[in-house]
Amino acid sequence: MDYQRIFTQAIDRLHAEGRYRVFIDILRNKGAFPNARCFAGHNGPKPITVWCSNDYLAMGQHPKVIAAMEEALHDVGAGSGGTRNIGGNTHYHVDLEGELADLHGKEGALLFTSGYVSNDATLSTLARLLPGCIVYSDELNHASMIAGIRNAGCEKRVFRHNDLAHLEELLAADDPAAPKLIAFESVYSMEGDVAPIHGICDLADKYNALTYLDEVHAVGMYGPRGGGISDRDEAASRLTIIEGTLAKAIGVMGGYIAADQVIIDVIRSYAPGFIFTTSLSPVLVAGALASIRHLKASSEERDGQQASAAMLKAKFRNAGLPVMDSTTHIVPLMVGDPVKAKRISDILLAEYGVYVQPINYPTVPRGSERLRFTPGPAHTEAMMDELAGALVEIWDRLEMRKAA
Amino acid sequence: MDYQRIFTQAIDRLHAEGRYRVFIDILRNKGAFPNARCFAGHNGPKPITVWCSNDYLAMGQHPKVIAAMEEALHDVGAGSGGTRNIGGNTHYHVDLEGELADLHGKEGALLFTSGYVSNDATLSTLARLLPGCIVYSDELNHASMIAGIRNAGCEKRVFRHNDLAHLEELLAADDPAAPKLIAFESVYSMEGDVAPIHGICDLADKYNALTYLDEVHAVGMYGPRGGGISDRDEAASRLTIIEGTLAKAIGVMGGYIAADQVIIDVIRSYAPGFIFTTSLSPVLVAGALASIRHLKASSEERDGQQASAAMLKAKFRNAGLPVMDSTTHIVPLMVGDPVKAKRISDILLAEYGVYVQPINYPTVPRGSERLRFTPGPAHTEAMMDELAGALVEIWDRLEMRKAA
Repeated sequence: MDYQRIFTQAIDRLHAEGRYRVFIDILRNKGAFPNARCFAGHNGPKPITVWCSNDYLAMGQHPKVIAAMEEALHDVGAGSGGTRNIGGNTHYHVDLEGELADLHGKEGALLFTSGYVSNDATLSTLARLLPGCIVYSDELNHASMIAGIRNAGCEKRVFRHNDLAHLEELLAADDPAAPKLIAFESVYSMEGDVAPIHGICDLADKYNALTYLDEVHAVGMYGPRGGGISDRDEAASRLTIIEGTLAKAIGVMGGYIAADQVIIDVIRSYAPGFIFTTSLSPVLVAGALASIRHLKASSEERDGQQASAAMLKAKFRNAGLPVMDSTTHIVPLMVGDPVKAKRISDILLAEYGVYVQPINYPTVPRGSERLRFTPGPAHTEAMMDELAGALVEIWDRLEMRKAA
Repeated sequence: MDYQRIFTQAIDRLHAEGRYRVFIDILRNKGAFPNARCFAGHNGPKPITVWCSNDYLAMGQHPKVIAAMEEALHDVGAGSGGTRNIGGNTHYHVDLEGELADLHGKEGALLFTSGYVSNDATLSTLARLLPGCIVYSDELNHASMIAGIRNAGCEKRVFRHNDLAHLEELLAADDPAAPKLIAFESVYSMEGDVAPIHGICDLADKYNALTYLDEVHAVGMYGPRGGGISDRDEAASRLTIIEGTLAKAIGVMGGYIAADQVIIDVIRSYAPGFIFTTSLSPVLVAGALASIRHLKASSEERDGQQASAAMLKAKFRNAGLPVMDSTTHIVPLMVGDPVKAKRISDILLAEYGVYVQPINYPTVPRGSERLRFTPGPAHTEAMMDELAGALVEIWDRLEMRKAA
């Protein structure tokens, strides 16, 4: 047994496919996001513009968020020092769960250390508590949902992306008495399209299924109070569980679910990924609280983001760049090849000071490699013109096809 | 299918067994840990002394840690805004991984959002990369290691706690050509005993097995630089992977592994729990960096903790309280019944302002329910005398048996 050889071969496979990942080492410039500095190369830090952050609304540098975190840091310290059950349940955690329950119109909420963990822990625990449970999963669901369903060890049916007819076909084919759970996302982050939430809830009602909606790319950004697409579409009350993150539009870190009190209580009581881990630092919780409270009352950031996204899409289209259909703030540009996607990204960083990460397998299916831009309220029109100009030059240089 | 009934029954089972958990809502008092205030009950916040925190060295309130976090908060903001691959790789992350690799004398290190995730993601990924892998797991391993091994879907052998003869028996019975991994902890957190690291490494050498050591209850606290028991016992170089946490003695939040570069690279490249999650907030990373650098150079906190633990054990023994054998900083008191453990804890909190959480199943086996004290450098002799006195009074009141 030659362990070294096996590990080396695993790495070699990534190089051979052109999808070995090199992390770009960056630091944001104080209060000036999307401006940052990059530590790649040998000439010291270079100024860059970040185009691929999930700090969608730049809340990570909002004065209210920074002030709240600073206060908590000085008041109670760096970490919580324990699990929620053993010393790590602070008043901040209790307050934030109340705020999140209110945001989604649910009885309760439960914090996790990340959105990944909230999906993995909740889905795996829920399906295990329901013997014989069948989970119906959208084919483009995030890796963390896939992990949770797999770790549940239950039956799984994958329905075609956003395809209600296919979902109904699968539901109708199963035992009506079997427990059922439909797991899906509101905004799919690599496509920028949106699920038919009411249509899925109609099917859930018809076939007596629970619903689990991942709103991580929508919370803070849609709906009059930032409750996500389910807030915008007035569907929150129809969903069994809404899952969200504090690490994207909220600008901090952590994940959560919101649901009826009994569901919160069973997940709280039975999920190892919740029970056996140190709770979120109160500093993070304080920041998330301030961010959510601000976004409940202010639509300025949401409006700014939508305006930026519309403008960037228009500029890309006018320049003949292959911008993908997206009805949201996400602006993906199809490349279709992992080596080319990486090459474009490398040129943008080295020559234009533009940071956008190539999105390769396994994040997207092979052959659909892309660049994914996330314009926000802090991206200016001048930045967009520079970006579109750079892309056109590179598209020509690499002799890539433009749109008609 | 009545979902509500099933969930309610799941909660009822916990009440019936006396192990339904109620989280105690607390806030630390600025710079005065283990002093805190408790929000339970109806008379406003009450002052308490925390005896069950895993902020073992009170580093969560160390001025260097607070200052580093404040600086990062103002310099780069609240959250990282992305996964390590997509916008979330900051210079702080790179620096901390270098510092952790150095701490354990390894080529590289890799950060995760928590110790739980580092165990789950690394063990499940490692075993999947090695087809036919057999994992040998100490029977008292933490829930996160058990999750990682189960999620790997590989063969698993459980050896009796710290029992080298049993481990060898299991190793010898398997195919010599099969890939093997021995997973264990250095300090077992509910017992306070220590693994025979060199003995396990001898067996790993003999049977060509990889080794995975969880040092979460030892990092920062043992060894001349705080590298853990493997540092104290000069065994770090013999171990394949050392896993640790930033959330206990380091005082902040997050987890990591340290290992050869090729192993870091395969986990970095293949573990969904690493790839598809927002990276640690740079604020946390900056705090952990400051804490680790301090603890590498200072033994004052370690010495203070050991002195406190020795003193508390002696006081418990002299008072005839059933303190369990422990060769470390952890001081467990056996109760053996979940309802009694909870009752003692409730009386301590309500009448004595002492906060110690009862430890019930599934954290420990049924019938071995206990109270677990974690004295640190900031616990004074007066606090210990008060605590021992309170326990003796309660032991008498509940007519519980004392030691001979």
